[in-house]
Amino acid sequence: MSLLENIHGPRDLDGLSGPQLTQLANEIRAFLIENVARTGGHLGPNLGVVELTIALHRVFDSPNDPFVFDTGHQSYVHKLLTGRQDFSQLRSRGGLAGYPQRSESPHDVVESSHASSSLSWADGISRALTRTGRKDRHVVAVVGDGALTGGMTWEALNNISDDNDRNLVIVVNDNGRSYAPTIGGMARYLNRVRTTEGYENLRRGSDSFFRRFGAPGRALYRGVRGGTHGFLSRFANNVALYSNLDIKYLGPIDGHDLNALQETLTLAKSYGAPVIVHVITEKGHEYEPARNDEADQFHAVGKIDPATGLPLSSSDATSWTDVFAQSLLAAGERRDDIVAITAAMLRPTGLQPFAQRYPDRVHDVGIAEQHAVASAAGLAFGGLHPVVAIYATFMNRAFDQVLMDVALHRAGVTFVLDRAGVTGPDGPSHHGLWDLAMLQAVPGIRIAVPRDETRLREEFDEAVAVDDAPTVIRFPKGTVSPDLPAIERRTDGVDVLFRDGGEDVLLVGIGPMSHLAVEVAERLRAQGIGATVVDPRWAVPVQPSIVELAATHRLVITIEDGIRVGGIGTRVRQVLREAGVDTAVDELGLPDEFIDHATREEIFADAGLTAAKITHDVVAQVLGTRIPVARQHADTGAIWLPEPSPEPSQPAHDERS
Amino acid sequence: MSLLENIHGPRDLDGLSGPQLTQLANEIRAFLIENVARTGGHLGPNLGVVELTIALHRVFDSPNDPFVFDTGHQSYVHKLLTGRQDFSQLRSRGGLAGYPQRSESPHDVVESSHASSSLSWADGISRALTRTGRKDRHVVAVVGDGALTGGMTWEALNNISDDNDRNLVIVVNDNGRSYAPTIGGMARYLNRVRTTEGYENLRRGSDSFFRRFGAPGRALYRGVRGGTHGFLSRFANNVALYSNLDIKYLGPIDGHDLNALQETLTLAKSYGAPVIVHVITEKGHEYEPARNDEADQFHAVGKIDPATGLPLSSSDATSWTDVFAQSLLAAGERRDDIVAITAAMLRPTGLQPFAQRYPDRVHDVGIAEQHAVASAAGLAFGGLHPVVAIYATFMNRAFDQVLMDVALHRAGVTFVLDRAGVTGPDGPSHHGLWDLAMLQAVPGIRIAVPRDETRLREEFDEAVAVDDAPTVIRFPKGTVSPDLPAIERRTDGVDVLFRDGGEDVLLVGIGPMSHLAVEVAERLRAQGIGATVVDPRWAVPVQPSIVELAATHRLVITIEDGIRVGGIGTRVRQVLREAGVDTAVDELGLPDEFIDHATREEIFADAGLTAAKITHDVVAQVLGTRIPVARQHADTGAIWLPEPSPEPSQPAHDERS
Repeated sequence: MSLLENIHGPRDLDGLSGPQLTQLANEIRAFLIENVARTGGHLGPNLGVVELTIALHRVFDSPNDPFVFDTGHQSYVHKLLTGRQDFSQLRSRGGLAGYPQRSESPHDVVESSHASSSLSWADGISRALTRTGRKDRHVVAVVGDGALTGGMTWEALNNISDDNDRNLVIVVNDNGRSYAPTIGGMARYLNRVRTTEGYENLRRGSDSFFRRFGAPGRALYRGVRGGTHGFLSRFANNVALYSNLDIKYLGPIDGHDLNALQETLTLAKSYGAPVIVHVITEKGHEYEPARNDEADQFHAVGKIDPATGLPLSSSDATSWTDVFAQSLLAAGERRDDIVAITAAMLRPTGLQPFAQRYPDRVHDVGIAEQHAVASAAGLAFGGLHPVVAIYATFMNRAFDQVLMDVALHRAGVTFVLDRAGVTGPDGPSHHGLWDLAMLQAVPGIRIAVPRDETRLREEFDEAVAVDDAPTVIRFPKGTVSPDLPAIERRTDGVDVLFRDGGEDVLLVGIGPMSHLAVEVAERLRAQGIGATVVDPRWAVPVQPSIVELAATHRLVITIEDGIRVGGIGTRVRQVLREAGVDTAVDELGLPDEFIDHATREEIFADAGLTAAKITHDVVAQVLGTRIPVARQHADTGAIWLPEPSPEPSQPAHDERS
Repeated sequence: MSLLENIHGPRDLDGLSGPQLTQLANEIRAFLIENVARTGGHLGPNLGVVELTIALHRVFDSPNDPFVFDTGHQSYVHKLLTGRQDFSQLRSRGGLAGYPQRSESPHDVVESSHASSSLSWADGISRALTRTGRKDRHVVAVVGDGALTGGMTWEALNNISDDNDRNLVIVVNDNGRSYAPTIGGMARYLNRVRTTEGYENLRRGSDSFFRRFGAPGRALYRGVRGGTHGFLSRFANNVALYSNLDIKYLGPIDGHDLNALQETLTLAKSYGAPVIVHVITEKGHEYEPARNDEADQFHAVGKIDPATGLPLSSSDATSWTDVFAQSLLAAGERRDDIVAITAAMLRPTGLQPFAQRYPDRVHDVGIAEQHAVASAAGLAFGGLHPVVAIYATFMNRAFDQVLMDVALHRAGVTFVLDRAGVTGPDGPSHHGLWDLAMLQAVPGIRIAVPRDETRLREEFDEAVAVDDAPTVIRFPKGTVSPDLPAIERRTDGVDVLFRDGGEDVLLVGIGPMSHLAVEVAERLRAQGIGATVVDPRWAVPVQPSIVELAATHRLVITIEDGIRVGGIGTRVRQVLREAGVDTAVDELGLPDEFIDHATREEIFADAGLTAAKITHDVVAQVLGTRIPVARQHADTGAIWLPEPSPEPSQPAHDERS
């Protein structure tokens, strides 16, 4: 029987000896490799924090001492040590989430997994604990070095340094890379610390070093108390992290040395004020395939062969990201003024080919979306055309900058939003559901939603051709949708995808939802209901063709892969109303809820975004009656039609409840 | 004839002698006091940067060297020196803007006046200049010390330090206060610099100091080049600003010493890489009333007596802010768990009375909206109920934190948005137009819009009573609207304000727009059209009464003081449609445009948000015809009715264009 199986909670660690803890670390590493290889997940980061997480749970008492992970992708070991060892359904519906989740365990506090927020949480929690008479409890924030590039950490540290009357331990998990290697002056500084002789000596000799001072060594303790510079920091450098802020600093510590970790964390625990513990770890530690992976050290993997690290099913399918990568490269070849910006996601957003060809035309700004967007406005003012490639969910971090820095100044900046809409296994913080609702309210903005590979290429070219307004192009995660040719392109660029002569229903498919719209139209035809399907290509502004076509139909259905509240559908309706076209509009999209991890298909089904469900509802509306769902054929979605209702041709918009 | 009158552009400064520059500074100071006293405006900050701005325009060559002000409220002197000396209509329609504005002058680059963005702009512009073969040009960013508390400056500095191949001068205008005294560890650090003996000596002896080294002194230059620590910084401290980032640093310099400023800026100009110049200024310099103003040193004033600084019309009118301040204090007395958070706006947001009574229950986090919101989530997790008081326009900075940190975690946090809707003279970056559209898309959020003093009190109490979801209460700038009693409060809390038995039109007044809605209803009654007016009080979620009432009327008009795209009106319509109520809905609000400075009344008139215009449009719709505006009586808004149209009672929602 393994040691790990007997760990049901953190306090089960208390009785283990040093050698047993080492054995446990080895078991956990083996467990992670075996299990994450089966499901996919954040393998590299978690292999790097095995000893650190064990040490944290040995020294602190979660959940009485709340742990905050930044970001939560480094919480797998924490899950294992807090009674969650069934990883078989990791990131699948009903299985463990890939990030902390309060509904799983009282040991999980912060679910959001946008980087750089942990220190703000820790600041708030520790103030509240002090204020409510629980000052004996410690708040522990574990923050990756990449998150330090985000401005929120600066804002939080500036405040944390302002109030010393609380127990707050900030563990900087420094592995030298957020997703890719961390960038900027701060990263250079950390790198200097890591590579100094002092740290190397410390790492090699930490056992004897700690024996010399006892545990927790009084001399060491006094050294820290004495000023900004922790005693340990003398080994590496003369300037502590954030010296201007005067936050106490301990480190650097070898993050794979269980003794050194426990000693130092115990020291930090006893300090009675906010303190930074600088821990140096290795992403993918002791897993050869990860260590050899220059690109991102197995930051996140799909299903792999645990022995070799090679993907099990090497899909040759082209992704949306691939198509964008090719389009950018082609545009960059034509136009010397095109530059690209990424916020620590060079490879995931497809900038790598462009960066290889034009290394001086790409800026990785770190996890710093606000700066990415505002500096793009500056680049545009200077005569360049920046392409900001970013995940849709992280765009929410820079709404003010899109509005005030880019749009107000009519800057020609193209935003490429990858992973837009429902993404799947990463859960509520990673779905890209808000970009359309948020960005459509930005004056002068133009938003393209390509439905397939051909449209992505042409809409990207149209987007970068605009030099006096922000343009947005957004597409989902995964394999690009198969090409869906238009039967007519109207003069305003709207594509007509389906037309059967009947004018009952106009289906407006926003980008990739056009495929679903066509499927609905075909089902409607089988029911004797005439439909037209269009893809507006440019969703914002609403094109004249949409208004013209809506005027001749009895019902308009818009379908978007985003939150329906305030979404594109509401804008279509608003434009129709302004034009005096009062055809009823149903705006379909995702409900205004947070959506847990599941597959994209499962989530669409829950939201009623299936051909069967939409067809059913349209038939019910057009025929002026509602048909019980039970009468719908489970597989084909075919609908049994009841006897004609008293007013079968009643226009839908005349219905009153 | 004054020297100032002969300054038509920066190069007119070139021929002036040292004594003439001093005279010019005095003239500018007198000009500012005289003129801003008449119009109101940002007096204190501009009195503090007279010498600095003169020195900048002497040393650099705007607009070839682009100047970026952070924030733009310190650009009055810059306007005076770049050919804009008619301050008679400052911040009024047709007059000069209170911030930089590109349409006024090529010397203005960045219009947005949300703090902490200048370094990102400067990073982008300088990269673009280098890349496009204009490396000889310098980018000059003037950033207030308060803006350093914002995370964007950290993000930008981290990137600026990564590329030394450009001319970028960062002037830190350190007056020890953003609006109020700047807070946090960084502010303590700056304060230490200001108060060291070294700086005091430097200030007193700077003339002789600079004579010793010549201009620009080679020794000084070598000192800077040699490392992180500028030569001058030795006078004050051993650690430069942002030492971890390794950005060159010069300072501190006395910001009212023209010689010292010019010497140091010349040195910085010659440096050939990004450099920080730390300048210490005094807000309200040489204006006794401002210097004596402990609170904010005349940061922004209304019309004042220039001799005494006293307000000309001391209005006793109660503001929305006052009512909130009283409500918070009362709630704080009842409940020990209520704490307040502000982002550098303690007084303007009305937290002062609460802070005086409960100093340890208020956190001023600096200009750091993201941290304000995320740390509030932490406070809520720790068992407190935070009230985050913030201007509506700055809420845009923290959308992601409201969504991911507060709403996803169902944290009971109350957001109090002051200056919501059209604010007037501060122009496009200060109108609070986006909060409703942005926040209504946050799952689980509840948004109250009080229409008057009584409702603000009661809705605030209702808001802080919610402990498992974010609540928002938003109100405009200025004097609170007169109480408008309800004739009926429905069980869901919706107030019926007007009812004449007719059921042609349901007017939904969102908060303070209810007054306008009632005025419209009264005009409609005079036209024989029946109306009902409701104030939903809680705009989100949409209350059942709205649906019930809409079902019995022929037309619904929603009126909100916010951008209509994606606004509350669209949500009302969506909820009606879901409920099967297809009464036509017109969503009135502000157009999706950026709106220049003007009075609130002027802006509403432009947007058609007047009783006359709305009445006219409603009459036209209800009677099924459009009446030329020319037939509308200019004063009363009464409308001459044409002969009955062929289908006078045709329901509005049946109209087709």
